[in-house]
Amino acid sequence: MEMEDNNMIAGIIGAAGYVGAELVRLLSAHKRVKQLSLGSVLVEGDRIEDVYPNFLGKLSSPLLKPEEVIAASDVVFSALPHGIGEPYAKACLEKGVSYIDNSPDFRFDDDEETFKAWYGVGYTHPELRQRSVYGLPELNRERIKKLASTGPVIIGNPGCYPTGASLGMFPALAKGLAASGTIIVNSASGITGGGKEPQKSFHFPECSDSLSPYKVGAHRHVPEISRNMQLMAAVAGGAAPQLIFTPHLAPMNRGILSTIYIPLKEQWQAPAGCTRPRLPSKEIMAKTAEIRELYTAFYRDEIFVNVLPAGIMPATGRVRRTNFCDISVNMDQGGTTLIVISAIDNMIKGAAGQAVQNMNIILGFDESEGLEAVPSMF
Amino acid sequence: MEMEDNNMIAGIIGAAGYVGAELVRLLSAHKRVKQLSLGSVLVEGDRIEDVYPNFLGKLSSPLLKPEEVIAASDVVFSALPHGIGEPYAKACLEKGVSYIDNSPDFRFDDDEETFKAWYGVGYTHPELRQRSVYGLPELNRERIKKLASTGPVIIGNPGCYPTGASLGMFPALAKGLAASGTIIVNSASGITGGGKEPQKSFHFPECSDSLSPYKVGAHRHVPEISRNMQLMAAVAGGAAPQLIFTPHLAPMNRGILSTIYIPLKEQWQAPAGCTRPRLPSKEIMAKTAEIRELYTAFYRDEIFVNVLPAGIMPATGRVRRTNFCDISVNMDQGGTTLIVISAIDNMIKGAAGQAVQNMNIILGFDESEGLEAVPSMF
Amino acid sequence: MEMEDNNMIAGIIGAAGYVGAELVRLLSAHKRVKQLSLGSVLVEGDRIEDVYPNFLGKLSSPLLKPEEVIAASDVVFSALPHGIGEPYAKACLEKGVSYIDNSPDFRFDDDEETFKAWYGVGYTHPELRQRSVYGLPELNRERIKKLASTGPVIIGNPGCYPTGASLGMFPALAKGLAASGTIIVNSASGITGGGKEPQKSFHFPECSDSLSPYKVGAHRHVPEISRNMQLMAAVAGGAAPQLIFTPHLAPMNRGILSTIYIPLKEQWQAPAGCTRPRLPSKEIMAKTAEIRELYTAFYRDEIFVNVLPAGIMPATGRVRRTNFCDISVNMDQGGTTLIVISAIDNMIKGAAGQAVQNMNIILGFDESEGLEAVPSMF
Amino acid sequence: MEMEDNNMIAGIIGAAGYVGAELVRLLSAHKRVKQLSLGSVLVEGDRIEDVYPNFLGKLSSPLLKPEEVIAASDVVFSALPHGIGEPYAKACLEKGVSYIDNSPDFRFDDDEETFKAWYGVGYTHPELRQRSVYGLPELNRERIKKLASTGPVIIGNPGCYPTGASLGMFPALAKGLAASGTIIVNSASGITGGGKEPQKSFHFPECSDSLSPYKVGAHRHVPEISRNMQLMAAVAGGAAPQLIFTPHLAPMNRGILSTIYIPLKEQWQAPAGCTRPRLPSKEIMAKTAEIRELYTAFYRDEIFVNVLPAGIMPATGRVRRTNFCDISVNMDQGGTTLIVISAIDNMIKGAAGQAVQNMNIILGFDESEGLEAVPSMF
Repeated sequence: MEMEDNNMIAGIIGAAGYVGAELVRLLSAHKRVKQLSLGSVLVEGDRIEDVYPNFLGKLSSPLLKPEEVIAASDVVFSALPHGIGEPYAKACLEKGVSYIDNSPDFRFDDDEETFKAWYGVGYTHPELRQRSVYGLPELNRERIKKLASTGPVIIGNPGCYPTGASLGMFPALAKGLAASGTIIVNSASGITGGGKEPQKSFHFPECSDSLSPYKVGAHRHVPEISRNMQLMAAVAGGAAPQLIFTPHLAPMNRGILSTIYIPLKEQWQAPAGCTRPRLPSKEIMAKTAEIRELYTAFYRDEIFVNVLPAGIMPATGRVRRTNFCDISVNMDQGGTTLIVISAIDNMIKGAAGQAVQNMNIILGFDESEGLEAVPSMF
Repeated sequence: MEMEDNNMIAGIIGAAGYVGAELVRLLSAHKRVKQLSLGSVLVEGDRIEDVYPNFLGKLSSPLLKPEEVIAASDVVFSALPHGIGEPYAKACLEKGVSYIDNSPDFRFDDDEETFKAWYGVGYTHPELRQRSVYGLPELNRERIKKLASTGPVIIGNPGCYPTGASLGMFPALAKGLAASGTIIVNSASGITGGGKEPQKSFHFPECSDSLSPYKVGAHRHVPEISRNMQLMAAVAGGAAPQLIFTPHLAPMNRGILSTIYIPLKEQWQAPAGCTRPRLPSKEIMAKTAEIRELYTAFYRDEIFVNVLPAGIMPATGRVRRTNFCDISVNMDQGGTTLIVISAIDNMIKGAAGQAVQNMNIILGFDESEGLEAVPSMF
Repeated sequence: MEMEDNNMIAGIIGAAGYVGAELVRLLSAHKRVKQLSLGSVLVEGDRIEDVYPNFLGKLSSPLLKPEEVIAASDVVFSALPHGIGEPYAKACLEKGVSYIDNSPDFRFDDDEETFKAWYGVGYTHPELRQRSVYGLPELNRERIKKLASTGPVIIGNPGCYPTGASLGMFPALAKGLAASGTIIVNSASGITGGGKEPQKSFHFPECSDSLSPYKVGAHRHVPEISRNMQLMAAVAGGAAPQLIFTPHLAPMNRGILSTIYIPLKEQWQAPAGCTRPRLPSKEIMAKTAEIRELYTAFYRDEIFVNVLPAGIMPATGRVRRTNFCDISVNMDQGGTTLIVISAIDNMIKGAAGQAVQNMNIILGFDESEGLEAVPSMF
Repeated sequence: MEMEDNNMIAGIIGAAGYVGAELVRLLSAHKRVKQLSLGSVLVEGDRIEDVYPNFLGKLSSPLLKPEEVIAASDVVFSALPHGIGEPYAKACLEKGVSYIDNSPDFRFDDDEETFKAWYGVGYTHPELRQRSVYGLPELNRERIKKLASTGPVIIGNPGCYPTGASLGMFPALAKGLAASGTIIVNSASGITGGGKEPQKSFHFPECSDSLSPYKVGAHRHVPEISRNMQLMAAVAGGAAPQLIFTPHLAPMNRGILSTIYIPLKEQWQAPAGCTRPRLPSKEIMAKTAEIRELYTAFYRDEIFVNVLPAGIMPATGRVRRTNFCDISVNMDQGGTTLIVISAIDNMIKGAAGQAVQNMNIILGFDESEGLEAVPSMF
């Protein structure tokens, strides 16, 4: 379903939220997009520049009803909360345009049970899953392309934490490195992850200059990460380890850093007794290099995933405002646990950028179109 | 060795560094301290207010030679780097005053081998360890008091990460909750942890609004944390689990948050099959409450350690500029791993405040004298 | 009305707001205060540690009704909004205890007209102004003491911007340096100035890493600053210049920096033609030194006001969490305008600290009791 | 000198500094630029991704000698310090390519005296000014175009503060609104303005969460702003007012906010006696609207300058990472002084972005090519 050059209208429902606004920003610079049609469920009638004064004088658009957006658009993005968007997805398919959803509604395929258990509501249109696919390109690119080749599709765009966590684990799982047991994902997110609505936790004086955990052992991204782990472990013919996931709130605007602890199967561990204080031993460095090479090879053809050389650590600031995921591969001092650290921008690779990447894939555009920005240090 | 009221001179060697300056600030408000005598190895001759314009008009003092400080003082604090302070410790003992050292020189008692392995140099005066004690009051208060009862002592004031990590683990280890295996400590520190010298990693544009790991699997605080783990596990008659420790740099001035994953022995785990999505099951809540109660009891008499009630998470901002350590006790969704989170101010409980606490102990003052400040939210 | 040592109960009405919480923190460390009685108009029934988890385990108190607070207390602080506190002030006087008010209700003495013009409501108990005084000690200390010597008083504790701005202008006005014309006060405040309630302007993602003006030419602190200017200009027997005041919001928690432009009378200007590029000319440096000396002399006996030496600039971070006001005296390159910069902590000298200072004055305590903290750099 | 599509090589000398790195980022996404040639005077031999790990895996280039860069390039940008770049400018002209200089070397045309007075050194090749032009497009677009139509040119790209300050004053000066007297520019910059080299002032613990002035009355941007004022006042046939300029350092990465106080000629003032408290009077609102309309008209054809509607204030965060300048037009409460506030990103419109804008102008590209990014709120 390739579009002709530059004459597409992209619709965004839920444009007044943070992910919506970031979609506006990215799509307004996308070469294949001629025009935007913006919609909002709650603030119909206003204009986007009333909600976001940053757009004043640079970008102007009314906020229409979702139906109007769908009617006007060649592709529709949704940045609505979970549980309310399925009718819009349906309307898109009926009209013959694809629907790229940033809510969790389409992240669990036909596993309605898991969705319901974690989100408290069921599917309103379960049959839509016949045309939906989980949109993590590094996991599902071929499935996405294949489905898109048969008509308009629904993309379940991944959650922010699941994107960073999954990309950090995939090679280890797909290549069968991980021992059975528990993988721990310790993540911290910038405060845009909490969305646009002012609330105590995100009030500057309460969250600036401070770091804290939240939803310990109870975050809704747990089942999504677990599911990705299982899918990838199945590639190696095994079961996935258990998952412990702890999110934190860090005093910064954007970014997710995930520090991932993966116990290694014995053959991937460094030989016993090889540890030494302070600096990794030769044996550990060699084993780490081997696994790093395996990660590098796994992501060789991925534009947006970078496996960093030894000694260079990821920093959320270094992928800020880009669609990149930086990954560092390390081993603990005992030589038994892989420590992978991944960094993404929660609003880009963790939301709006990945949604655009999915649009590029399903519409046959260059996958990095509109996402070429290289990061700065500051 | 109790001092009479209010007429003590406290000396600080290394007053020009960040820990030194924080000691100046705390001790200048300490009721038992009449006067400060400040010294510096590198910037002799200047005055403290030339180095720290924040003191201008509020506090004024020359920076003397270490020998002059020792000659003038009734107790001496050192905030020098490792490997150079032993002669000053010796001089203090000879003069008959105690020496509270913020470097790692006296944190390993007579285990010179470990010190040397991690810090690259040996002890210059090994015999001093007969009068030295590791100054983590929650671990060693009685040992500190006993030693101080026999004359002037040397305190090896703990490192910042080891303080937060150890306090988070102690009850679990002392009560034998931890299964054998590996405890993971995932910590993040504010940028004052890097000290006063400007360098790239701490240059505002490179570290603000960004989060990154460093010294993965190789930080010098590993042996100190491990040692504390062993000491506390021995209380329960067992060996300590292995340690994996990953420090991170967070874009804030002060604070260390440690998220600690402790695999539980089977009898401390929640019953198998009791997990449920999203919210912890009744069984897990009960088990967590039991362990939380155990933590609360363990720290019942500790002024500076707070075990938070269920549902309240620690935040570094909520212990900022205080000597408190806030601790939250949680369990993972599978009911097999204890997740303890501790928050301290790296410059206070993690350095200068704990040094003052040690002074209070060895001089027989009220242990919280000069450290009474309650925290604010902002 | 001097209190005996250490046995006073201090009441705080409006303890649940930010100024209230800061009063709690400061007063809990005040040597003369034995106990606090906390009240809240809106959240009666809760406890302070429910509202402020930072107090959990360190400080505990119910939130009572204002009447209960007054009944229990030897002195009452109020941190209520304007327009609702006068009955409590009245009740305090009737009971015979002083009332220190952080709202603007008592900042304008009997000039109800100005108060009404800017705050939209009139006085409910105008007669209370017979026992009230504007509590800027550097302006009114003798008036405050005199009134307090005749019985319980009401203190109209100054606004945050007026404190920093007035202290920066007083010597120039009192000594008749300012030409007629306009004084411009360009100020920026940390975000705690906006209070506890989450709102868009103070939502971390919208205000962090950004600087912006607000209420340009319309801030309610204009009449308070103007009034202080007039009072101080009257000392020199003149009228005050006009005022232009522009507040800004800076991405930091605490602090107000005011950059104040005061056109000089000809005799205080540097001689014409003496300017030179880049560095101030000898003549300008001499004139600046003369005026700086005049400022220094003016504040010689003030504990909390520091006139900085040439070349040292104030920074809000250097007075953070203290009751100090740092002032720098400079001249423009043309030698005609005085540029004074003042820095305070908006929550301390700009609110809670100054309230405590006023308590110390009216109760005959040492004026710096409970406010001795020296600042740190970080 | 129009280039064919997409086949240009752009050279950057001084690519290892912050402005250089930002040029790399912007030009790597510029449609007309096929390739970059990067050079450094100090760190020849390294690669750009060694200096800036953010580029690792995304952008790779050696750092060549300046001569090599010039030899390879169709246009050359320089981000060197002042006083060393003239030979490179000369070499560019001799080769027949334009040289866009971010240093002050070419900002003063043939006024070598002013340059020397403020920068301490003279011109090494004064004759180059025959081919140089000050590159503020909103002031000099036609001069730039005309010069470029006759061959390769040298652009003296404006300083960061002068850009924001000048754009805020131009309409008032060009239309003759400003009374004689003094215009005050009170500006604050993000910390990237201090460059890449770590130093005390930019060390995170010393500058974060703090605001302070620097170089009061002595900043090198004074003569550049003054010169722009004179040029623009000459349009109205008058002399420019005097300038007082005070820069501050704000705890944020990017952005300059300038609050500009312009005394109005009597005919532009609001009628005397029309002021009212709190809200501007009808008369003042009308006069402000008139002047705002004049500003809007002045900038009608400028892509990158936005005059905001009444009630919307600029914020540096709202132009972050864009080439836009947002301007708000206000009047003081007395109706006699215009208060204009402008916001730019110091690294984009204040440096690298404006340099690209100049390239677009001299090479006949669309002026906004590569600079189309709309801002986000966060």
